[in-house]
Amino acid sequence: MTVALLGGTGDIGEGLALRLAIDTDRPIIVGSREAKKAQTAATEYESRLADRGIESRITGATNAEAAGRADIVVLAIPPFHVGDTVESIASHLDEQILVTPGVGMQGDDAGLHYHPPDTGSVTELVAERAPDDVPVVGAFHNLSAERLTDLDSELDLDTLIVGDNPDAKDTVMSLANEINGLRALHAGPLANAAEVESVTPLVINIGRYSEGMRDAGVKFI
Amino acid sequence: MTVALLGGTGDIGEGLALRLAIDTDRPIIVGSREAKKAQTAATEYESRLADRGIESRITGATNAEAAGRADIVVLAIPPFHVGDTVESIASHLDEQILVTPGVGMQGDDAGLHYHPPDTGSVTELVAERAPDDVPVVGAFHNLSAERLTDLDSELDLDTLIVGDNPDAKDTVMSLANEINGLRALHAGPLANAAEVESVTPLVINIGRYSEGMRDAGVKFI
Repeated sequence: MTVALLGGTGDIGEGLALRLAIDTDRPIIVGSREAKKAQTAATEYESRLADRGIESRITGATNAEAAGRADIVVLAIPPFHVGDTVESIASHLDEQILVTPGVGMQGDDAGLHYHPPDTGSVTELVAERAPDDVPVVGAFHNLSAERLTDLDSELDLDTLIVGDNPDAKDTVMSLANEINGLRALHAGPLANAAEVESVTPLVINIGRYSEGMRDAGVKFI
Repeated sequence: MTVALLGGTGDIGEGLALRLAIDTDRPIIVGSREAKKAQTAATEYESRLADRGIESRITGATNAEAAGRADIVVLAIPPFHVGDTVESIASHLDEQILVTPGVGMQGDDAGLHYHPPDTGSVTELVAERAPDDVPVVGAFHNLSAERLTDLDSELDLDTLIVGDNPDAKDTVMSLANEINGLRALHAGPLANAAEVESVTPLVINIGRYSEGMRDAGVKFI
């Protein structure tokens, strides 16, 4: 099962690419708007892993090509671009599962605040823009890119899964659970995505105000 | 330092009263709209603790009397009553700290959703209704009443502290940290309360959809 990380040259895309390459045997495709940028990143990730003695299969392609060749397509894209990206790859989607980790946030002096689009959440925005027969799953929302890309850091974190298609949710849950130190938990249908996404500004605020909590993640006990 | 738990006959008030009585030496006053109801609950909590060999000082009073005699006043009251309660006790407040664990939620078929009042959060609603010189601190938002009242259950959980008055925040943080298994973390000013409150519907949704996660709490790692 091939995983495409659209926006895979960004920090959360990089973190997921590296962790998936290390902990799973799934082929990874880094997607970007420019094929060359994606290929450069893929080579860089492979060589970073090779330095740790890890063989990996990471390739690079345009977002549309990456989506077309994958089984699971992760939209590691800034939330204000995600709707357009989904529409631009729609004709390349067939039986793929779309996975969105995006969160809408706005900052003020106090900290970061959850600021969803009119659909109620970024996850539901993706579902609204995706072709009707393409299942959308929300996952990987609350993970610190710095924790993911720091390969010496053990995660010991949870990620929450929301979606309306049970098979697609189970597939993404399995993928998430393959990452060492990550545990996937069900949080219900897409309609519950806002409460999941809200945790991202919260962990960033905790990192700002509580000593030693920078890049904090969340665990449910 | 005396702690009053207004609405202390309700489940979250009961849980906090019991845990504070066990883990701290602070006198506890259970508040209710009716003094008699509060006194009955206080006697019941004391005898429940006595059965476990724990001596406690729990008394009961009307909400206004309890608030007037305490140093820290916890509003363990349903969010739609909290504004009126604050106004009804205002003349009894002097140098007390008001603590609010309230969260506005609405349910639908999918689950519970965060539904704050127009002030942006219940915590900010309390601050708006409280006298200007009474500091308000948000704390204890995301704790399961059932976990708190099950005295055989070890907590191992975090609680998030928000407020605009540093001294008041430190006082509440100390109180929270005295409860065994509870760790208090700073999440910033009152303006960051919404992201803290949003975790409550989330943990309830996780409890509904993830096996074995009923009464889940949260920890930041």
